Amino acid sequence: MLKIKYINHILEELDVIKDMLGRNVFAVDTSRSPYALLKPVSITSVKITEGFWKMRIDAVFQNTLMSIYRKLEETDRINRFRWAARGLPIQSDKTVFPFDDTDVYKWIEACAYKLAQAPDENLEKLISQIISEIGSAQEPDGYLFTELHGKHDLRWKNLAFNHEMYTAGHLIQAAIAWYRATGDSSLLNISTKFADLITETFKPDGLRGACGHPNIEMALVELYRETGKRDYLDCAIYLVEERGRSLIRSDGERGFITVYNIFGGAEYLVDHQPFKELKEIAGHAVRALYLNCGVTDIYAEIGDKELLLTLHRLWEDMTQYKMYITGGVGSRYITESFGEPYELPNMRAYSETCAAIANFMWNWRMLGVTCDAKFTDIMERTIYNGILSGISLNGTRFFYMNPLASRGQYTRQEWFLCACCPPNIARLLTSLPGYIYSVSNEGIWMHFYTSNTSSIKFNNIDVKITVKTDFPWNEKAEILVDPSQEEKFTVFLYIPSWCDNPVVRVNKERVKATPKTYLPINRVWRSNTLIEVAFPMKVKFNIANPLLEENFGKVALSRGPLIYCFEEVDNPKVNLWNILITDEKDVKLSYLNDLSSIVGLQVNGIELIEGLRDYLYLPINELKVRSKKIKLKAIPYFAWANRGMGSMRVWIPSTKRFTILESRLRSKKEARMKVRKTKR
Amino acid sequence: MLKIKYINHILEELDVIKDMLGRNVFAVDTSRSPYALLKPVSITSVKITEGFWKMRIDAVFQNTLMSIYRKLEETDRINRFRWAARGLPIQSDKTVFPFDDTDVYKWIEACAYKLAQAPDENLEKLISQIISEIGSAQEPDGYLFTELHGKHDLRWKNLAFNHEMYTAGHLIQAAIAWYRATGDSSLLNISTKFADLITETFKPDGLRGACGHPNIEMALVELYRETGKRDYLDCAIYLVEERGRSLIRSDGERGFITVYNIFGGAEYLVDHQPFKELKEIAGHAVRALYLNCGVTDIYAEIGDKELLLTLHRLWEDMTQYKMYITGGVGSRYITESFGEPYELPNMRAYSETCAAIANFMWNWRMLGVTCDAKFTDIMERTIYNGILSGISLNGTRFFYMNPLASRGQYTRQEWFLCACCPPNIARLLTSLPGYIYSVSNEGIWMHFYTSNTSSIKFNNIDVKITVKTDFPWNEKAEILVDPSQEEKFTVFLYIPSWCDNPVVRVNKERVKATPKTYLPINRVWRSNTLIEVAFPMKVKFNIANPLLEENFGKVALSRGPLIYCFEEVDNPKVNLWNILITDEKDVKLSYLNDLSSIVGLQVNGIELIEGLRDYLYLPINELKVRSKKIKLKAIPYFAWANRGMGSMRVWIPSTKRFTILESRLRSKKEARMKVRKTKR
Repeated sequence: MLKIKYINHILEELDVIKDMLGRNVFAVDTSRSPYALLKPVSITSVKITEGFWKMRIDAVFQNTLMSIYRKLEETDRINRFRWAARGLPIQSDKTVFPFDDTDVYKWIEACAYKLAQAPDENLEKLISQIISEIGSAQEPDGYLFTELHGKHDLRWKNLAFNHEMYTAGHLIQAAIAWYRATGDSSLLNISTKFADLITETFKPDGLRGACGHPNIEMALVELYRETGKRDYLDCAIYLVEERGRSLIRSDGERGFITVYNIFGGAEYLVDHQPFKELKEIAGHAVRALYLNCGVTDIYAEIGDKELLLTLHRLWEDMTQYKMYITGGVGSRYITESFGEPYELPNMRAYSETCAAIANFMWNWRMLGVTCDAKFTDIMERTIYNGILSGISLNGTRFFYMNPLASRGQYTRQEWFLCACCPPNIARLLTSLPGYIYSVSNEGIWMHFYTSNTSSIKFNNIDVKITVKTDFPWNEKAEILVDPSQEEKFTVFLYIPSWCDNPVVRVNKERVKATPKTYLPINRVWRSNTLIEVAFPMKVKFNIANPLLEENFGKVALSRGPLIYCFEEVDNPKVNLWNILITDEKDVKLSYLNDLSSIVGLQVNGIELIEGLRDYLYLPINELKVRSKKIKLKAIPYFAWANRGMGSMRVWIPSTKRFTILESRLRSKKEARMKVRKTKR
Repeated sequence: MLKIKYINHILEELDVIKDMLGRNVFAVDTSRSPYALLKPVSITSVKITEGFWKMRIDAVFQNTLMSIYRKLEETDRINRFRWAARGLPIQSDKTVFPFDDTDVYKWIEACAYKLAQAPDENLEKLISQIISEIGSAQEPDGYLFTELHGKHDLRWKNLAFNHEMYTAGHLIQAAIAWYRATGDSSLLNISTKFADLITETFKPDGLRGACGHPNIEMALVELYRETGKRDYLDCAIYLVEERGRSLIRSDGERGFITVYNIFGGAEYLVDHQPFKELKEIAGHAVRALYLNCGVTDIYAEIGDKELLLTLHRLWEDMTQYKMYITGGVGSRYITESFGEPYELPNMRAYSETCAAIANFMWNWRMLGVTCDAKFTDIMERTIYNGILSGISLNGTRFFYMNPLASRGQYTRQEWFLCACCPPNIARLLTSLPGYIYSVSNEGIWMHFYTSNTSSIKFNNIDVKITVKTDFPWNEKAEILVDPSQEEKFTVFLYIPSWCDNPVVRVNKERVKATPKTYLPINRVWRSNTLIEVAFPMKVKFNIANPLLEENFGKVALSRGPLIYCFEEVDNPKVNLWNILITDEKDVKLSYLNDLSSIVGLQVNGIELIEGLRDYLYLPINELKVRSKKIKLKAIPYFAWANRGMGSMRVWIPSTKRFTILESRLRSKKEARMKVRKTKR
């Protein structure tokens, strides 16, 4: 039961929220989308008050955003606009990719979400200045792409790799966020000018083709939502329909075909089949998933069932065959692509941070048009594991690849030559309050458990919701629902898939709950109704499908939504590549001194003592093997690589997986022999 | 003991050999190389009479060579020369790579080796005609590279990717083989003209740099050996010294840096460090290994110890960390490159046929300058497994990649857009008789066991050697040594590494033999001295180093030099991805009706019955598992994919690997408890 003092504190917090701009800031605004069953709750209505996500978001607010800004300056990414404005060429070896403008745009978007929650005059001024510099780089007809500034002849010529519309998409997204957060329309005006040029250029009686890297599709739908201008939606639809028709090429660039083929040809660009004919998720992971985001957005507006069917098909393929247990996707290293089914190597996992983010973004949209908790399940898996591993605990270092095993070769970096991931994770984490709740005709949906105080409008009443929890470390959460007037509606609670025995009580009365569904609590809500949930976090030993050959005989530990890994720093005297877990029952929680407020695990295992460096292949009879019992310590995967370099593994061989089978065979045999004996 | 009738038959065979051209045909002629301890035996002196290799080489003679010729015509590769001769551009989508001339050259080389063993007037005429067409495409100054025919400005500009000198290397190799086999110097004259242009161009006071794809180095050394012209050797040395100095670039080609970086930059081209500073084998596998061949050839001529030290270092790195159990190398798929240590995926193995061939070629050279049996071991492993898998039993279909696991997606093809492998395997197999023996100051070396009748010159006497064996199916071989006069010398017999208890008898007298060495039999050899060898072929269950994570808990079967695999066609009702081997003792040889003269294996195992398609990840306690005992049939890896498409696996989980460990732990515990009880 919440203490009165705590409630008073929360009420004060709510007042702060009320005093804020009062603007609705959505990352995805489906408020008026006819086929969106869920409507968003503004980032400004939800205040994460403490605990797990508060720490993560604070790190972004306090460290990440300005750290990225410094890098944007240092690596000449803002200079690109300044140079373009003055007609100067780009002459910097720190910015070499045509899409480098987008790092600036994504950072502005992240800052906009921050400003919506925590006003910061200096930051706002800084960005206003940069927006004006961006504007100066815009060509008279609206074209804004510093890579080809002033080079009219080269526009739209290399649709495959130039990323012009991908860049426009990020400009539009930043502009909308900026406008929603601050009310300043300057960037929005710049972006609509560019969007208008695109919609006038790419249309049935205009240019054919689409952008090699999707993103513009979801940006145009969002711009339609913001401005009401139907052309933007139509253009997004057109660009989806133009895929899979071999129009995404490069005109006359020498060596293009070689590069194109190395990358994987049309499939890499998701241009190998028309969208509605796609059977399997394939190609560059971020491309494929951003495209799916755009198509889901289109579906939310026009309700084309064939689009939704295709999206379901692709989702099934991805989640059944091509996703890491962390929610990471795009396993294929060199081309950042989806692989074949079960092609999910641990150490050579690519699993780009941006791909995990795109996975989250797509599942959010799918949830919105279906209300199916299976999408929330993937969002939870992704945000707690494959996304969060992309940023260090202090928010200043990033993983581009998120491998599931390391022999010490991987470490987070402050920046990358291709720097898409840092500002992308920043914009996701700063907008996270917007992903906690939704509203539907029936009531209020709660997707994530995190301490927050929120004020959600439903049927013209204000419903104050206060959550207090130490999730994901602790299984319990207290949810206080406090409508401004008594009202009958439903509160839909997400019941996590990993919880076998969820316990939900409303005003102390038990309500039956089923994992991986939304529990609908339909009642007349009176002031200060208390929902108590407990999702027992039994440590699970997860196996992979046998067809995922590399993980055969191995287990990955999880507790709650968190996947665990074994890091060298916690197991300093152990060769992590020569261990087995021997016991799947005796698991202890283990609190780590050097990683504050993180719950570790300890399991029993054995270490094999073999001449590790002595052979590559060896007849088994020549193996001199000894083994010793050890205790193995695991930490949540997202938190690895925060204490120096070293080995790490998620999947660990387990003797159980083998001995259980043998003992069953043995006991069958014994049973048969018993039967025979009895017969005699 | 050999029957008299058989011996007479052999003597007739030897007469045939004597009647042949009498020319020495060597693939690598180290006869006069000061630092080569082993001297080659001409292909014309060795006649493989029956058995395993006879069947394989006959398939190449009868099917492969003309099948490749038809493809060379169909895919316009010979037309490239015809077009160049007439000043026409290359206009064909069947030949797109700058190095496509080399497929013609390698085919000519293969045919030359065939003609040295089996005269064929029609084939000789056909090639003479093609040689004249090649000659017509040569530019007045000697340049011969159809891709840039007549484009003087583009010559030597894109050293990284244009393959000009790589192509010249294959021209030279073909020309030397053709000259040695037929005495016709027409192609040799063409190639020396081009070689002269290269040596005049690339020299200390000339052009800097080397070819992105090595090959020219070993070709120039061989041309020096053939012609005695020192410039060729000097140029080879120069080209090796120019590597690792960032000179292998592309001048001003747009997009070059992107392509270069995707491929892996300087490392891909083995241009990241000067040769003598290389610590690890890295980069594109065929590039790296052809370079090592060239450097070993240089060492054989100049004896630079630092070169040999580096070669040893690279060899250790390769064989300890970066080689498949099949001898295949270059595991990284998209860039055909060596990976990190233990980066050896089974299903995404690249393991190009050409890389395995290059591995064989390099080990042959290392053997020649060291006499160390460890190199023969790798040659044996490679030729019986990773190379031979590259060609179908009938010789008409080829693997480019040689994966160690397949879910049915891999099948041999008649040809490839990049068609390097088919003519490469053809030239190796047609020259195989030249790899059976060597000669040193001390005597005669025997590297491979295959039925043959040979006449080897040693100290001006002729030593007739007759081998009768059903190796590798049967462990025994009879070797009849018959010198033209009594003479004291040593016969060095290779004792395979996989044989624990080799038995060697000379005239019935037992001689002690040690695996992975050359057994020196020093004696006065009299006529018809019989050596009998038996290399017991116990089936081995091989494990991989635990750091090779994907194979942890798995075994690969081998018998003699052959690695085995499990193919769907032999295990039709079994899901190969859900099996375990349970017994490592009860192995039966199994003869297969549909694969004549191939010895299969049968082992005991269990199949797990699980809902295979139902989950990607699952808590182990939710797994409903049943298992049933099965018999599993294996065939030699090289013979897979000859009976339609289907699944295949080399590495199979083994319960023993896990239960042994547990039972040891248990028995230790029991032992401790016993001790305690005794104390009481």
